[in-house]
Amino acid sequence: MIKAYAVHEARGQLKSFEYDPGLLGEEEIEINVEYCGICHSDLSMLNNEWGMSQYPLVPGHEVVGTIGAVGNRVKTVSVGQKVGLGWFSRSCLTCEWCVGGDQNLCQTAESTIVGRHGGFADKVRAHYSWVFPLPPEINLETAGPLFCGGITVFNPIMECGIKSTDRVGVIGIGGLGHMALQFLHAWGCDVTAFSSSADKEAEAKQLGANHFVNSRNDNALKEVENSFDFILSTVNADLDWNGYINALRPKGRLHFVGVTPNPLSVQIFPLILGQKTVSASPLGSPTTIAQMLDFATRHKIEPLIEVFPLDQVNEAIAKLENGQPRYRLVLKV
Amino acid sequence: MIKAYAVHEARGQLKSFEYDPGLLGEEEIEINVEYCGICHSDLSMLNNEWGMSQYPLVPGHEVVGTIGAVGNRVKTVSVGQKVGLGWFSRSCLTCEWCVGGDQNLCQTAESTIVGRHGGFADKVRAHYSWVFPLPPEINLETAGPLFCGGITVFNPIMECGIKSTDRVGVIGIGGLGHMALQFLHAWGCDVTAFSSSADKEAEAKQLGANHFVNSRNDNALKEVENSFDFILSTVNADLDWNGYINALRPKGRLHFVGVTPNPLSVQIFPLILGQKTVSASPLGSPTTIAQMLDFATRHKIEPLIEVFPLDQVNEAIAKLENGQPRYRLVLKV
Repeated sequence: MIKAYAVHEARGQLKSFEYDPGLLGEEEIEINVEYCGICHSDLSMLNNEWGMSQYPLVPGHEVVGTIGAVGNRVKTVSVGQKVGLGWFSRSCLTCEWCVGGDQNLCQTAESTIVGRHGGFADKVRAHYSWVFPLPPEINLETAGPLFCGGITVFNPIMECGIKSTDRVGVIGIGGLGHMALQFLHAWGCDVTAFSSSADKEAEAKQLGANHFVNSRNDNALKEVENSFDFILSTVNADLDWNGYINALRPKGRLHFVGVTPNPLSVQIFPLILGQKTVSASPLGSPTTIAQMLDFATRHKIEPLIEVFPLDQVNEAIAKLENGQPRYRLVLKV
Repeated sequence: MIKAYAVHEARGQLKSFEYDPGLLGEEEIEINVEYCGICHSDLSMLNNEWGMSQYPLVPGHEVVGTIGAVGNRVKTVSVGQKVGLGWFSRSCLTCEWCVGGDQNLCQTAESTIVGRHGGFADKVRAHYSWVFPLPPEINLETAGPLFCGGITVFNPIMECGIKSTDRVGVIGIGGLGHMALQFLHAWGCDVTAFSSSADKEAEAKQLGANHFVNSRNDNALKEVENSFDFILSTVNADLDWNGYINALRPKGRLHFVGVTPNPLSVQIFPLILGQKTVSASPLGSPTTIAQMLDFATRHKIEPLIEVFPLDQVNEAIAKLENGQPRYRLVLKV
């Protein structure tokens, strides 16, 4: 039996929950969970915001732990090894996207917490292809959030071909943005943090921002017109996107990993004249996750976290829902 | 004196007009015009739709002719050589964009018909950097439209890194689109033409389309969901852009060279989940123009044109304004 925490209805409290995972599949891995990050998408799933939640629902998709068992066809890792698991727990491995190395774009990819149980538990299972060995030097306590928040902001740096000579901006200094600042700083870029919270300036600069723009100031965007090669939006809000497009230099790109409540309204002339791009992306492939783990470890990039014991999971969820954690919450099992 | 046709006020008729161009600049070239295409942007300038027209205004920026004179510092071409001239007649050659080979993105680039006189004339001048030698095999009569319409659709093929294995779509089979079909066919792509004119199907296929979608059909876009790596919009209209984004495969790109009357409204979730891109571009650099001329000549790509003598310029303009020329109009001087 696996001992977990589950909700039984949308917006319910998490309660102790045991389930029998059945026989371990031949290509499956069982991880003894040591830490599990809490991501905003756990909250969305708990509350069925995306209409795909199935109850009882065990959240948790930023897992760090030790392999407790492996199916008899698993060759990539072995019992006792430290590993991580993120949003995806399986992909088909046979479609063109899987075969081409873009397993995160597999149209039948399985999510760790959709229709199956996640990492708010003593154990969690996944297909071997989405279980990642951890570099030995990594900090286990802070590594969990890399597997969802971290890869979400690292992936566009790779996929959009960001160069170390680029001038880049990060909109929103929160759970995603505070990791993006660190990655882009270590990448060698000139980094500007855009935030509506003036009190985050000092911390943003410690995290790697060279410049800080208080986006509440009326002329904030006007003053940085024609400045950036790349701007990454991590916020779930409707902002002045045309103002941000004007803040791009020719050939610049505005990239979204945050979900805006409303469709983007984009003026066409500035896009044409400046040969500019608007794009977006989800998570990343196994190869990119492995590269992120190596890069984060080499550059000592860690999310800033607050740790809660697993039995205080409801307090942690409340903090994520009501407050503004700085910046990620992690459950210790 | 240069003998030209000019309008003296917005929406006026073109009339004979002579002007003294003064001494030829040291880096300037004087072209004896043989053909000059008529572009939709000539019309926009005649009618001051962009608020930057200066009268008297001599339109014409798809020039083909023979060099009549060169300034004493011109080393790239010589008198008697066949050349072409497009939308740009000069760029600074010292800014980062010029130095980097993106002279078309120079923020002080001069247009052939803004604040100076264009190619509806027996002669026109330009800085040597935007005067292009023509391949000897090129058809002079049809070459003019390559210099604005042609480069507008060829440039994104280069800049967006379109691959021969890509499945691509072209929205709008008109002055721009009918050239895009030819370029993309010669590029080796699988090409779909999207048109609201069912009667263009046969011609679109002759021009290189493998498939034709009548975009007036209710389910047209639904039927091609998840099909394209690249869709190029050449129309000046507001269409169902989210439908076209859904017609893209993962990692696909919807690219605009046509000016939509209203801002684009783009849903964020399909963009994120499919890692998709929306982008736009203007014209192309001198290097890309030279590559286009070579490619078009090697692949016998020519716009379909109708020729008017220069003294029937008002009839030609009326045809462009009222009718639907198939597909470009060219003045013979």
